[in-house]
Amino acid sequence: MPSEEPSPRVDEVDRAAVSAANGAFYEAFEARDLDAMSDLWAHDDRVVCVHPGWTTLRGWGPVAASWAAIFGGPQHLQFILTDEHVVVVDDVAWVSCDENLLAGDGSGTVTSLNVFTREGDGRWLMLAHHGAPVMTGPGEP
Amino acid sequence: MPSEEPSPRVDEVDRAAVSAANGAFYEAFEARDLDAMSDLWAHDDRVVCVHPGWTTLRGWGPVAASWAAIFGGPQHLQFILTDEHVVVVDDVAWVSCDENLLAGDGSGTVTSLNVFTREGDGRWLMLAHHGAPVMTGPGEP
Repeated sequence: MPSEEPSPRVDEVDRAAVSAANGAFYEAFEARDLDAMSDLWAHDDRVVCVHPGWTTLRGWGPVAASWAAIFGGPQHLQFILTDEHVVVVDDVAWVSCDENLLAGDGSGTVTSLNVFTREGDGRWLMLAHHGAPVMTGPGEP
Repeated sequence: MPSEEPSPRVDEVDRAAVSAANGAFYEAFEARDLDAMSDLWAHDDRVVCVHPGWTTLRGWGPVAASWAAIFGGPQHLQFILTDEHVVVVDDVAWVSCDENLLAGDGSGTVTSLNVFTREGDGRWLMLAHHGAPVMTGPGEP
Protein backbone atom coordinates (compact mmCIF):
# COMPACT_ATOMS: atom_id res chain seq x y z
CA MET A 1 0.00 0.00 0.00
CA PRO A 2 1.84 3.13 -1.11
CA SER A 3 1.46 6.00 1.28
CA GLU A 4 2.77 9.54 1.70
CA GLU A 5 3.37 8.85 5.38
CA PRO A 6 6.74 7.40 6.35
CA SER A 7 6.36 3.98 7.85
CA PRO A 8 7.26 3.40 11.51
CA ARG A 9 10.01 1.07 10.30
CA VAL A 10 11.66 3.76 8.13
CA ASP A 11 11.39 6.13 11.07
CA GLU A 12 13.20 3.60 13.25
CA VAL A 13 15.95 3.15 10.65
CA ASP A 14 16.45 6.93 10.51
CA ARG A 15 16.61 7.22 14.28
CA ALA A 16 19.17 4.41 14.47
CA ALA A 17 21.34 6.15 11.84
CA VAL A 18 21.19 9.41 13.80
CA SER A 19 21.99 7.61 17.03
CA ALA A 20 25.02 6.03 15.30
CA ALA A 21 26.21 9.46 14.13
CA ASN A 22 25.80 10.76 17.68
CA GLY A 23 27.76 7.80 19.03
CA ALA A 24 30.55 8.40 16.50
CA PHE A 25 30.86 11.96 17.82
CA TYR A 26 31.55 10.74 21.35
CA GLU A 27 33.89 8.01 20.10
CA ALA A 28 35.95 10.59 18.22
CA PHE A 29 35.90 12.80 21.33
CA GLU A 30 37.13 9.99 23.60
CA ALA A 31 39.76 8.91 21.05
CA ARG A 32 40.90 12.55 20.58
CA ASP A 33 40.74 11.78 16.86
CA LEU A 34 40.72 15.09 14.98
CA ASP A 35 40.26 13.48 11.55
CA ALA A 36 37.26 11.47 12.68
CA MET A 37 35.82 14.55 14.42
CA SER A 38 36.32 16.62 11.27
CA ASP A 39 34.65 14.01 9.07
CA LEU A 40 31.44 13.96 11.06
CA TRP A 41 30.75 17.72 11.05
CA ALA A 42 29.35 19.81 8.22
CA HIS A 43 32.06 22.26 7.19
CA ASP A 44 30.12 25.48 6.74
CA ASP A 45 28.93 28.70 8.35
CA ARG A 46 25.82 27.11 9.87
CA VAL A 47 27.91 25.14 12.33
CA VAL A 48 27.61 26.07 16.02
CA CYS A 49 29.35 24.53 19.01
CA VAL A 50 29.10 25.26 22.72
CA HIS A 51 31.53 23.46 24.99
CA PRO A 52 30.15 23.56 28.55
CA GLY A 53 30.87 26.93 30.10
CA TRP A 54 32.39 28.35 26.92
CA THR A 55 31.10 31.14 24.75
CA THR A 56 29.48 30.08 21.46
CA LEU A 57 31.73 29.10 18.55
CA ARG A 58 30.23 29.68 15.10
CA GLY A 59 31.40 28.40 11.72
CA TRP A 60 33.53 25.34 11.05
CA GLY A 61 36.89 27.16 11.36
CA PRO A 62 36.57 28.21 15.02
CA VAL A 63 34.87 24.89 15.88
CA ALA A 64 37.71 22.90 14.29
CA ALA A 65 40.26 24.99 16.17
CA SER A 66 38.49 24.23 19.46
CA TRP A 67 38.72 20.49 18.88
CA ALA A 68 42.42 20.79 18.06
CA ALA A 69 42.94 22.71 21.31
CA ILE A 70 40.89 20.25 23.36
CA PHE A 71 42.58 17.18 21.88
CA GLY A 72 45.98 18.79 22.39
CA GLY A 73 45.23 19.42 26.06
CA PRO A 74 45.95 17.19 29.02
CA GLN A 75 42.45 15.96 29.82
CA HIS A 76 41.28 12.55 28.65
CA LEU A 77 37.53 12.18 28.95
CA GLN A 78 35.29 9.16 28.95
CA PHE A 79 31.58 9.45 28.30
CA ILE A 80 28.74 7.29 29.47
CA LEU A 81 25.69 8.44 27.53
CA THR A 82 22.28 8.15 29.14
CA ASP A 83 18.76 9.33 28.31
CA GLU A 84 19.38 9.59 24.59
CA HIS A 85 16.31 10.89 22.76
CA VAL A 86 16.33 11.22 18.97
CA VAL A 87 13.90 13.32 16.91
CA VAL A 88 13.94 13.13 13.11
CA VAL A 89 12.01 15.62 10.95
CA ASP A 90 12.71 14.99 7.26
CA ASP A 91 16.41 15.72 6.73
CA VAL A 92 17.06 17.27 10.14
CA ALA A 93 17.50 15.42 13.41
CA TRP A 94 18.55 16.22 16.91
CA VAL A 95 19.67 14.17 19.87
CA SER A 96 19.17 15.17 23.48
CA CYS A 97 21.38 13.16 25.81
CA ASP A 98 23.23 13.26 29.09
CA GLU A 99 27.01 12.96 28.98
CA ASN A 100 28.17 11.38 32.20
CA LEU A 101 31.84 12.35 32.27
CA LEU A 102 34.64 10.38 33.78
CA ALA A 103 37.86 12.38 33.86
CA GLY A 104 41.12 12.09 35.70
CA ASP A 105 40.23 14.82 38.14
CA GLY A 106 36.61 14.02 38.77
CA SER A 107 33.31 13.55 37.08
CA GLY A 108 30.20 15.45 36.19
CA THR A 109 27.19 15.57 33.95
CA VAL A 110 26.67 17.63 30.82
CA THR A 111 23.33 17.70 29.04
CA SER A 112 23.74 18.07 25.30
CA LEU A 113 21.64 18.90 22.28
CA ASN A 114 23.24 17.75 19.03
CA VAL A 115 21.73 18.71 15.66
CA PHE A 116 22.38 16.74 12.46
CA THR A 117 21.42 17.16 8.82
CA ARG A 118 21.13 14.41 6.21
CA GLU A 119 23.33 14.97 3.19
CA GLY A 120 22.55 13.93 -0.38
CA ASP A 121 24.53 10.73 0.10
CA GLY A 122 22.46 9.76 3.13
CA ARG A 123 25.10 10.58 5.76
CA TRP A 124 24.06 12.50 8.86
CA LEU A 125 26.47 15.37 9.54
CA MET A 126 26.67 17.38 12.75
CA LEU A 127 25.58 21.01 12.56
CA ALA A 128 25.34 21.85 16.26
CA HIS A 129 26.73 20.59 19.55
CA HIS A 130 25.39 22.43 22.56
CA GLY A 131 26.69 21.26 25.93
CA ALA A 132 25.30 22.61 29.21
CA PRO A 133 26.78 21.70 32.58
CA VAL A 134 24.28 20.25 35.04
CA MET A 135 24.73 22.05 38.34
CA THR A 136 23.07 21.68 41.67
CA GLY A 137 20.30 24.20 41.97
CA PRO A 138 18.55 26.13 39.25
CA GLY A 139 20.40 28.58 37.04
CA GLU A 140 17.91 30.42 34.87
CA PRO A 141 15.03 31.23 37.16
CA MET B 1 11.59 31.49 -13.95
CA PRO B 2 10.22 28.59 -11.95
CA SER B 3 12.84 26.72 -9.98
CA GLU B 4 13.06 23.91 -7.48
CA GLU B 5 15.46 25.96 -5.38
CA PRO B 6 13.96 28.29 -2.79
CA SER B 7 14.71 31.90 -3.64
CA PRO B 8 16.94 33.95 -1.34
CA ARG B 9 13.91 36.14 -0.67
CA VAL B 10 11.77 33.22 0.57
CA ASP B 11 14.69 32.13 2.71
CA GLU B 12 14.84 35.60 4.25
CA VAL B 13 11.10 35.57 4.95
CA ASP B 14 11.44 32.21 6.71
CA ARG B 15 14.34 33.40 8.82
CA ALA B 16 12.42 36.52 9.82
CA ALA B 17 9.45 34.39 10.89
CA VAL B 18 11.70 32.14 12.99
CA SER B 19 13.40 35.17 14.53
CA ALA B 20 9.96 36.54 15.44
CA ALA B 21 9.03 33.22 17.09
CA ASN B 22 12.29 33.32 19.03
CA GLY B 23 11.61 36.90 20.10
CA ALA B 24 8.11 35.95 21.25
CA PHE B 25 9.66 33.30 23.50
CA TYR B 26 11.78 35.87 25.32
CA GLU B 27 8.87 38.33 25.49
CA ALA B 28 6.71 35.69 27.17
CA PHE B 29 9.62 34.87 29.50
CA GLU B 30 10.11 38.51 30.52
CA ALA B 31 6.36 39.05 30.92
CA ARG B 32 6.03 35.81 32.95
CA ASP B 33 3.06 35.06 30.70
CA LEU B 34 2.26 31.36 31.02
CA ASP B 35 -0.48 31.43 28.36
CA ALA B 36 1.78 33.07 25.81
CA MET B 37 4.60 30.66 26.71
CA SER B 38 2.25 27.68 26.33
CA ASP B 39 0.99 28.90 22.95
CA LEU B 40 4.44 29.04 21.39
CA TRP B 41 5.57 25.49 22.29
CA ALA B 42 4.60 22.26 20.58
CA HIS B 43 2.67 20.19 23.13
CA ASP B 44 4.12 16.72 22.58
CA ASP B 45 6.73 14.20 23.68
CA ARG B 46 9.45 15.59 21.40
CA VAL B 47 9.73 18.73 23.51
CA VAL B 48 12.98 19.20 25.44
CA CYS B 49 13.98 22.09 27.70
CA VAL B 50 17.18 22.78 29.60
CA HIS B 51 17.17 25.76 31.93
CA PRO B 52 20.80 26.74 32.62
CA GLY B 53 22.28 24.42 35.23
CA TRP B 54 19.15 22.26 35.40
CA THR B 55 18.76 18.67 34.38
CA THR B 56 16.94 18.04 31.11
CA LEU B 57 13.15 18.25 31.05
CA ARG B 58 11.44 16.14 28.39
CA GLY B 59 7.84 16.24 27.17
CA TRP B 60 5.46 19.16 27.34
CA GLY B 61 4.08 18.31 30.82
CA PRO B 62 7.36 18.70 32.76
CA VAL B 63 8.36 21.67 30.61
CA ALA B 64 5.05 23.44 31.28
CA ALA B 65 5.44 22.77 35.01
CA SER B 66 8.91 24.35 34.95
CA TRP B 67 7.57 27.55 33.41
CA ALA B 68 4.81 27.70 36.03
CA ALA B 69 7.43 27.30 38.77
CA ILE B 70 9.75 29.90 37.25
CA PHE B 71 6.99 32.44 36.66
CA GLY B 72 5.70 31.86 40.20
CA GLY B 73 9.15 32.53 41.65
CA PRO B 74 10.62 35.80 42.83
CA GLN B 75 13.05 36.53 40.03
CA HIS B 76 12.14 38.94 37.23
CA LEU B 77 14.51 38.64 34.30
CA GLN B 78 15.22 40.93 31.40
CA PHE B 79 16.96 39.69 28.29
CA ILE B 80 19.12 41.52 25.81
CA LEU B 81 19.62 39.14 22.90
CA THR B 82 22.84 39.33 20.91
CA ASP B 83 24.49 37.24 18.19
CA GLU B 84 21.25 35.72 16.95
CA HIS B 85 21.89 33.25 14.14
CA VAL B 86 18.98 31.51 12.42
CA VAL B 87 19.22 28.36 10.29
CA VAL B 88 16.18 27.07 8.38
CA VAL B 89 16.12 23.62 6.76
CA ASP B 90 12.70 22.93 5.24
CA ASP B 91 10.24 22.81 8.16
CA VAL B 92 12.84 22.84 10.94
CA ALA B 93 14.76 25.84 12.18
CA TRP B 94 17.04 26.66 15.05
CA VAL B 95 18.30 29.86 16.61
CA SER B 96 21.61 30.21 18.37
CA CYS B 97 21.74 33.36 20.48
CA ASP B 98 23.25 34.87 23.58
CA GLU B 99 20.87 35.86 26.37
CA ASN B 100 22.41 38.74 28.27
CA LEU B 101 20.49 38.62 31.53
CA LEU B 102 19.63 41.52 33.75
CA ALA B 103 18.20 40.37 37.06
CA GLY B 104 17.66 41.99 40.41
CA ASP B 105 20.64 40.27 41.96
CA GLY B 106 23.11 40.51 39.13
CA SER B 107 23.66 39.66 35.54
CA GLY B 108 25.16 36.98 33.37
CA THR B 109 25.18 35.43 29.94
CA VAL B 110 23.44 32.28 28.79
CA THR B 111 24.03 30.87 25.31
CA SER B 112 20.92 29.20 23.93
CA LEU B 113 19.97 26.89 21.13
CA ASN B 114 16.25 27.01 20.34
CA VAL B 115 14.69 24.57 17.86
CA PHE B 116 11.41 25.26 16.05
CA THR B 117 9.20 23.32 13.66
CA ARG B 118 6.79 24.75 11.09
CA GLU B 119 3.24 23.54 11.55
CA GLY B 120 0.71 22.96 8.79
CA ASP B 121 -0.72 26.43 9.36
CA GLY B 122 2.70 28.04 8.86
CA ARG B 123 3.33 28.82 12.53
CA TRP B 124 6.77 28.06 13.97
CA LEU B 125 6.44 26.20 17.28
CA MET B 126 9.24 25.65 19.79
CA LEU B 127 10.46 22.08 20.23
CA ALA B 128 13.66 22.68 22.18
CA HIS B 129 15.17 25.35 24.41
CA HIS B 130 18.67 24.54 25.54
CA GLY B 131 20.32 27.14 27.76
CA ALA B 132 23.97 26.89 28.82
CA PRO B 133 25.57 29.30 31.29
CA VAL B 134 28.67 31.02 29.99
CA MET B 135 31.35 30.73 32.65
CA THR B 136 34.88 32.01 32.83
CA GLY B 137 37.24 29.29 31.75
CA PRO B 138 36.51 26.14 29.79
CA GLY B 139 34.18 23.48 31.08
CA GLU B 140 34.31 20.48 28.79
CA PRO B 141 38.01 20.03 27.98
